[in-house]
Amino acid sequence: MKCAIGLDYGTNSVRCLIVDTENGRELGTCVYEYPTGEAGIILDPADHNLARQNPADYLEGAEVTIAGAIAQARRAEPGFDPRDIVGIGVDTTGSTPLPVDRHGVPLALLGAFKSNPNAHAWLWKDHTGHAEAAEITDLARRERPQYLAKCGGTYSSEWFFSKILHCRRTDPEVFDAAYTWVEHADWLPAVLTGTESPDKLRRCRCAAGHKAMCNSAWGGYPDSAFLGGLDPKLGALRRTLGEQTYAVDQPAGRLTPAWAGKLGLPAGIPVAMGAFDAHLGAVGSGIRRGVLVKIIGTSTCDMVVAPNDATLADVPGICGIVDGSILPGYFGLEAGQSAVGDIFNWFVNYLQPGGKEAGSHSTLTEKAARLKPGQSGLLALDWNNGNRTILVDQRLTGLLVGQTLHTRPEEIYRALVEATAFGALTIINRFEEYGVKIDQVVNCGGIAEKNAMLMQIYADVTGREMKISRSAQTCALGSAVAAAVVGGAHGDFAAAQAAMCGIKETTFKPIAAHHKVYQKLYKLYRRLHDGFGLPGKVLAMGGVMKELLQIKEKANA
Amino acid sequence: MKCAIGLDYGTNSVRCLIVDTENGRELGTCVYEYPTGEAGIILDPADHNLARQNPADYLEGAEVTIAGAIAQARRAEPGFDPRDIVGIGVDTTGSTPLPVDRHGVPLALLGAFKSNPNAHAWLWKDHTGHAEAAEITDLARRERPQYLAKCGGTYSSEWFFSKILHCRRTDPEVFDAAYTWVEHADWLPAVLTGTESPDKLRRCRCAAGHKAMCNSAWGGYPDSAFLGGLDPKLGALRRTLGEQTYAVDQPAGRLTPAWAGKLGLPAGIPVAMGAFDAHLGAVGSGIRRGVLVKIIGTSTCDMVVAPNDATLADVPGICGIVDGSILPGYFGLEAGQSAVGDIFNWFVNYLQPGGKEAGSHSTLTEKAARLKPGQSGLLALDWNNGNRTILVDQRLTGLLVGQTLHTRPEEIYRALVEATAFGALTIINRFEEYGVKIDQVVNCGGIAEKNAMLMQIYADVTGREMKISRSAQTCALGSAVAAAVVGGAHGDFAAAQAAMCGIKETTFKPIAAHHKVYQKLYKLYRRLHDGFGLPGKVLAMGGVMKELLQIKEKANA
Repeated sequence: MKCAIGLDYGTNSVRCLIVDTENGRELGTCVYEYPTGEAGIILDPADHNLARQNPADYLEGAEVTIAGAIAQARRAEPGFDPRDIVGIGVDTTGSTPLPVDRHGVPLALLGAFKSNPNAHAWLWKDHTGHAEAAEITDLARRERPQYLAKCGGTYSSEWFFSKILHCRRTDPEVFDAAYTWVEHADWLPAVLTGTESPDKLRRCRCAAGHKAMCNSAWGGYPDSAFLGGLDPKLGALRRTLGEQTYAVDQPAGRLTPAWAGKLGLPAGIPVAMGAFDAHLGAVGSGIRRGVLVKIIGTSTCDMVVAPNDATLADVPGICGIVDGSILPGYFGLEAGQSAVGDIFNWFVNYLQPGGKEAGSHSTLTEKAARLKPGQSGLLALDWNNGNRTILVDQRLTGLLVGQTLHTRPEEIYRALVEATAFGALTIINRFEEYGVKIDQVVNCGGIAEKNAMLMQIYADVTGREMKISRSAQTCALGSAVAAAVVGGAHGDFAAAQAAMCGIKETTFKPIAAHHKVYQKLYKLYRRLHDGFGLPGKVLAMGGVMKELLQIKEKANA
Repeated sequence: MKCAIGLDYGTNSVRCLIVDTENGRELGTCVYEYPTGEAGIILDPADHNLARQNPADYLEGAEVTIAGAIAQARRAEPGFDPRDIVGIGVDTTGSTPLPVDRHGVPLALLGAFKSNPNAHAWLWKDHTGHAEAAEITDLARRERPQYLAKCGGTYSSEWFFSKILHCRRTDPEVFDAAYTWVEHADWLPAVLTGTESPDKLRRCRCAAGHKAMCNSAWGGYPDSAFLGGLDPKLGALRRTLGEQTYAVDQPAGRLTPAWAGKLGLPAGIPVAMGAFDAHLGAVGSGIRRGVLVKIIGTSTCDMVVAPNDATLADVPGICGIVDGSILPGYFGLEAGQSAVGDIFNWFVNYLQPGGKEAGSHSTLTEKAARLKPGQSGLLALDWNNGNRTILVDQRLTGLLVGQTLHTRPEEIYRALVEATAFGALTIINRFEEYGVKIDQVVNCGGIAEKNAMLMQIYADVTGREMKISRSAQTCALGSAVAAAVVGGAHGDFAAAQAAMCGIKETTFKPIAAHHKVYQKLYKLYRRLHDGFGLPGKVLAMGGVMKELLQIKEKANA
């Protein structure tokens, strides 16, 4: 038996999954909740933008979860032996950079900076660098528009350089003490393989390409003149980032004897280059050409791949196009919706229609499932947290139209679910309009697994079958796939995915009559979407309410 | 002491008010809940459009409440003597027509039809005649467009001829048994004065003008050719409607000895012509030239008067312009919002945000009052029940824009209140655009009296002081004013109102800083209002969400 380990570093915890590389069977798993801060996040009551993590939690988490998963695998599978493990794969959140010293040691782990949040890992959802993000966007727009073309037109406060520049501006002591900054996804594999020193460190294609404007078309990371234009010391940092990046089929190095001893694993097994959770989640869901993987949670990531030849045009409005960020040899294309589950959570937790019990997700879902498409007369935009794809505009907000004096909570709940489905369809259409054909949709994440009503609505709205990834741990499974490849259990990703990944038997097929109604509603959605979302677009709204009433009356007839 | 009686027939009950004509002091009052049906309304479980009332309840109600009010006045005021009562005034809902026989007796009171709802009073909110309303509108649009110009462009299913024609179509037996149809507002004064026989009956200007397309410009009621075009028997009914109508300064007749005996009142005192509750409510609130009276309840009636000379142009989009319908010698102009309190009731009763307790009107009002104008980033349209003025379009629906993942119930509640205030401002502007200047706004009704937050928002949005009518029973008081005039206690309405009506000391003055913010929000409201409400209007919506965010950020700064 050949097994692979996937380590999945999430926002609040890390999970280890041990997988049989021959068939994807999940032999053991273990979760470790980060102990530092609140649910693993260091917060600042005075600044709601701040979100940091303690890298010590990452190390402790690797030890605890690998040991726990091994113990579980041993119990479940008498024949299991940790020596069967051929490799380790790692996915993390991102962009989550850490300042490190010239040996690659995080400043947070050094005595002098232990209690300074700026010396810790800057978690993906830290937005302290919003002013710097705007500054970077402005400069790039003027001087390097090509940088923005690959990342949706706006550089985000969640990304690498916004965070580093903000540290430079607000905590020069930490900035000056840092030799360089390293993504969590790069740092963890480097530590396990003893390659964390900046002159040995390998940076992954995924983080560099999606969050740090790194692209071979312009020689890797942004040039030092550009970065220096933001701040001379940021310009000087450029040379510490190196000239090359590596996809997930490459090893970051080999497990050191010290770590092998600690973890109870064979020394010298390869550790794959890291990548972000959504990207390896797409791998674990079986992504390949023609397959859209939707990772549906509080927000969505919509991932596709396309051959990395010259035939792919820039797809406007998607979050990123990066060679090798998902599968080696393919462009990884990332799109997404800024809020999906978060919109339903808002309705349930903030509005609490009918009180906590009557307004629960399950009660509302049950009632909403009884409604017919179009029956509520409602139509919503899914922009309560802005629009990531295809408008790339955080300064958009929610909209609901069609309310009467009899509109009920479950009708609004369903309208919100439908709105996210319309948003999902808009992303699919955008890919296809630019030549990226989508033959299959595979969904993963808690909502996809639990909410059959939502999946049926997605099928009915898009007119496409909705499949569900077989594994409930697609990110960790994707990391294990990378581990299986670098560990030699499979010759390439396609073979590893064919063996290890799959979809559930239950799928959701579009119902023709529903799809017909939703085609009408989608036209109205696009009228609102374009009218409110595209500054130059002036569209007639005069008929929207009446057309909704007509659809409603037909549904009720 | 000279006293006047106002009888106010509402939807569920009738109230009697005895008022000192010298100073408006309310000496005694009594309410009678109609016993028939559900809360006084005969319903049909198979047809939610049906709403009828039993005229026997009207008669019983007059007896009970007049006796009760006299008893209370006697207790409260030892010097009070029923012989001091100089007249009776009556207001009712409308259009609420009853089929009567050739002696003026309602068919509902005859044995043969006692259990037939079609023989009863067709309550204002009966919508069974919606198809007939459309038919009447169509025919008038083609052949008598002038009829529609005075009633907002659409003939309603709530109105006189829609109901009669529906009875003709669906219950010919009742229709054929009826000699004519009489408004509740005409029938009640006629009964008290023994003038209910059709050859003596006087029909009031208010009901005829606002609900039956009666106007001296075309010789009174619609001509029999027009009505005959709808149905020959409706055409034949025309001659039973008479050629003249009467304003509220005219007596319907004198109290019969029989009724005087029953009621304990002096025989022979005049009973004033009836009018609708909102119109006499405006009188009781002190309406005069330049004063807008807003009667704020589940919906609003917005009443103004203008000199009945040739200077008044048609004001497009208002519900009705009728000479003498409010004050003799003035055009009565009626506008209104299809839902105000009903929108807040919808939010509280249907959505129940946070459960029944947390989502009560008082809790939401208290929390919403702490918010600053613009702070929520929300903007709503007040169209959950369509738009009566200025768009005259029932097929419009609600809209809410600006939701984020943190929007709270009280923010939506406030946005809904603000939406109704923007709707109120739109009506004021419409009047003034067509030369009807408004110097003062007097509010009455439960919401105006109880909800200080709402009144302050109305002041801040309109930039006008909001005054509150002193009496809590403005409709009954208005009827008493009419009674005082026909009873000779005052020479005219102006004198009677000056003596008997007034406003509360507490008024709501606009706060300049708030008004400034609301001026910005109103521009956005108008963009949504015109864009969604006017079919031909195509407006850019692209900036709406961003402008709301800017206003929000400024309010939070």
